[in-house]
Amino acid sequence: MADGLILHEYSASGNCYKVRLTAALLGLALERREYDIMKGETRTPEFLANVNANGRIPVLQAGDRFIPESNAACFYLADGTALVPADRFERADMLRWMFWEQYNHEPNVATLRFWNGWVGLDNLTDGQRAQLPAKRSAGEAALALMDEHLAGRGWFVGSAPTLADIALYAYTHVAGDGGFRLEDYPGVSAWLAPIEALPGYLPMDA
Amino acid sequence: MADGLILHEYSASGNCYKVRLTAALLGLALERREYDIMKGETRTPEFLANVNANGRIPVLQAGDRFIPESNAACFYLADGTALVPADRFERADMLRWMFWEQYNHEPNVATLRFWNGWVGLDNLTDGQRAQLPAKRSAGEAALALMDEHLAGRGWFVGSAPTLADIALYAYTHVAGDGGFRLEDYPGVSAWLAPIEALPGYLPMDA
Repeated sequence: MADGLILHEYSASGNCYKVRLTAALLGLALERREYDIMKGETRTPEFLANVNANGRIPVLQAGDRFIPESNAACFYLADGTALVPADRFERADMLRWMFWEQYNHEPNVATLRFWNGWVGLDNLTDGQRAQLPAKRSAGEAALALMDEHLAGRGWFVGSAPTLADIALYAYTHVAGDGGFRLEDYPGVSAWLAPIEALPGYLPMDA
Repeated sequence: MADGLILHEYSASGNCYKVRLTAALLGLALERREYDIMKGETRTPEFLANVNANGRIPVLQAGDRFIPESNAACFYLADGTALVPADRFERADMLRWMFWEQYNHEPNVATLRFWNGWVGLDNLTDGQRAQLPAKRSAGEAALALMDEHLAGRGWFVGSAPTLADIALYAYTHVAGDGGFRLEDYPGVSAWLAPIEALPGYLPMDA
């Protein structure tokens, strides 16, 4: 990859960690630029005009081009490597889990972690508070679906790690921060260690 | 594509329409199987065991393999065609808009259409009702972001239609059903007709 890679991020975000972990597993160097989302640093006029009009991190910068959306950034880094299957069905199946992650997993598992650990449950708006039970049960359903899928499998797609595993690992391995009990999902728990044993693996707080 | 293609769907869903529109633009035949989501037909034990453990449509079946998640199904159909850019950055940028669609657009623009036209606003739960203002403003923000991006452009990515346009078109062109005013977004309004003029275009109710 010719262009220098810069990750615009908030380090504690699992979505940002996905991109760091993908780069680490591929041996790619990333320059990191930190924005404090708790201080609105991704909603400034400069950020909206120059980095991401959607006001969110992560954004991967490759030269003078920008890729928002964590899973798209991971795809950019891994395109053409073994983390994206060469088989057409497996490639689509990988994307299927990545879209599922953003629709069924992240808005529940990650949001409860954020509300619990950053916003504080006492500071939720009434609208957020009304969503707590639905997000709890949807998060548990997401973990249960992962657990069912992993029964008898080592990886989400095919017989090797792909971006689907990386995307799902990011918020799953810290789901306890949102009050989820990973010990209730033995298939999910057993799938974490092989990811952490991959060459180049980088912990979230590294 | 050697295997017969079957779309497990609920026709009125924009997510299902995306897959039909992609197939139509590519000249691919799809067998259609209808499930009434209002009667829980995607939550039966048979559906969960044989089609999608996540209990949702669309699911694209290719031979004896199944691809849930609308945007992954579109990717499977279009992989290797001009609807998926050959350029690495553009391919990631296309996925960026497709992930954005599922995270920032569909949960707001599509959900308000569904609540308004299918569930009925009088039948919402308290938790749903509490989300109405946030979903309205987030849906308007999504349409405004599209409008800003389309200023001076014909298509979302590069200089030709891609799956990003198809994925975003599906719920955008019927956003009025959810009470959004497309006439407030001239860039978005101007982008609809060129999609509808593409060879093979299929309307949602076809």
